[in-house]
Amino acid sequence: MFDDVIKKLLSEVADLTEVPLNGAFNIRNNGHSEGRNSTENIQIVPKENNSGIDIYIKPGTKDENVHIPALITEAGVHDLVYNDFHIGEGADVTIVAGCGIHNCGSEESLHEGIHRFFVGKNAKVKYIEKHIGEGDGNGKRIINPQTHIEGDENSYLEMDTVQLKGVDSTKRISSAKLAAGATVVIKEKIMTHGDQYAETSFDVILEGEGSSAKLISRSVARDKSRQLFRSKIVGNADCYGHSECDAIIMDDGVVAAEPEIVANNVDATLIHEAAIGKIAGDQLMKLMTLGLTEKEAEAQIINGFLK
Amino acid sequence: MFDDVIKKLLSEVADLTEVPLNGAFNIRNNGHSEGRNSTENIQIVPKENNSGIDIYIKPGTKDENVHIPALITEAGVHDLVYNDFHIGEGADVTIVAGCGIHNCGSEESLHEGIHRFFVGKNAKVKYIEKHIGEGDGNGKRIINPQTHIEGDENSYLEMDTVQLKGVDSTKRISSAKLAAGATVVIKEKIMTHGDQYAETSFDVILEGEGSSAKLISRSVARDKSRQLFRSKIVGNADCYGHSECDAIIMDDGVVAAEPEIVANNVDATLIHEAAIGKIAGDQLMKLMTLGLTEKEAEAQIINGFLK
Repeated sequence: MFDDVIKKLLSEVADLTEVPLNGAFNIRNNGHSEGRNSTENIQIVPKENNSGIDIYIKPGTKDENVHIPALITEAGVHDLVYNDFHIGEGADVTIVAGCGIHNCGSEESLHEGIHRFFVGKNAKVKYIEKHIGEGDGNGKRIINPQTHIEGDENSYLEMDTVQLKGVDSTKRISSAKLAAGATVVIKEKIMTHGDQYAETSFDVILEGEGSSAKLISRSVARDKSRQLFRSKIVGNADCYGHSECDAIIMDDGVVAAEPEIVANNVDATLIHEAAIGKIAGDQLMKLMTLGLTEKEAEAQIINGFLK
Repeated sequence: MFDDVIKKLLSEVADLTEVPLNGAFNIRNNGHSEGRNSTENIQIVPKENNSGIDIYIKPGTKDENVHIPALITEAGVHDLVYNDFHIGEGADVTIVAGCGIHNCGSEESLHEGIHRFFVGKNAKVKYIEKHIGEGDGNGKRIINPQTHIEGDENSYLEMDTVQLKGVDSTKRISSAKLAAGATVVIKEKIMTHGDQYAETSFDVILEGEGSSAKLISRSVARDKSRQLFRSKIVGNADCYGHSECDAIIMDDGVVAAEPEIVANNVDATLIHEAAIGKIAGDQLMKLMTLGLTEKEAEAQIINGFLK
């Protein structure tokens, strides 16, 4: 069904080593669906004009997965997709939604995935997103994901997003609005090389009593790459928000962090921490005295940092 | 020479209890100089049109003080003043430059003091600034100070700025550009009440190797008052920058923090921390079990926080 390029990307962005899959999935390639499956509890319904899908997860669904990888394997493709997740009350599911671009041509290829999550009361979601670029063409590989979360009462969503190589430019926009008792945890790991650019923007509104958000960004900027981290947490109730951004710069990498916290309620507790710097000299020395070269020691520290 | 209102303000903003003073000073009241003294090492020269003064501190001057309080004791005064400090190489001085507004009328009174510091090589400056508003009129008391620092090699400037009551609106703009080995430390303490508004903006460029900046802001927002803290530290060399903003909110107070750090050099280490929240319940409880009322316990915690 799929060629080796596609199989490799599916494995890398969505941990899909066996195709076809069991469970609910939708595989999008170059703007078209190349396989879709619904299950009894998880219905995947295409939107008109092939512009995306609605994913309906029944209340109470437990321990099920949805895979919706999006691939681009040609140069010159501009793919814009709208995917909406409707997660029923009390469901507990894992959603995997990576994007891989394999560009061997000279024209840029662009994927823009706009994901909305309507997380029902007491529902629990683990959302995993991996972005990867590859191919030896000089056409740019651009991935601009958007993730917009509406968390109903006592819902919980954890988002793990990773981009470690091959994406020339990315603007990652995430927002969340949380009702009473709802929680989001967003963990981001980014590494940029060469002339790459990565921008992250989080906007979280803690609207309900007891809502909370934790944003954790770890990034490494190598070569001449540039990164911008932006976050804004607004507390409008008795709530807790914590944002932390740790960045390692190497070579001529440049990183800027612009976090913002706004407490509009006396019971809001908001904390931000950011640190940017190179690998600590004493950490390097320690590993080098154990017999590693400087490059090996660096690699080991970076691996640990992004683990 | 001075009436009681002026004497009280001078004592509060500049710790001046004896007038006339020894040492270098310039006392500005309602836009006019009401007393000035130069010393052998510290020359105070008025600018044209009474728009401010130049303060020349000779190289090597040690253990001397300059007091340049600015007062407004009438309603409806808009005072704009430009004061430039030229601090010679290796000098070690203390500069006290508070502003007090006593407004018993119905029109607003406004002081805008724009201070520039040219800090010579190896010079050391302690700069103290207190802002206070009083008087029972309903005319607004507005103080908008600007502090712009150029630190030459291995210079050190510490700025302590305090505004604890009576200022209806303040926009505090500070900037620093630092050469190799130069340091600024800026400590700010702010408390706002009623409908007051306070905005703080720091911009620091760490240009030289070994330059460093530490920005420490502690603030309390009571009643319906609002505060905005903004900071930007840019590291262009092997340098160290640290910004921390801690805010306590009470009643319907609102605080926003927008820090920014930008590392343009692999050897730049930049850190930011911000925390906004109310007084911790367990701290209050502890003091109340020692016999304090809730109000007394609150007052004691706030005093400690702003000490």
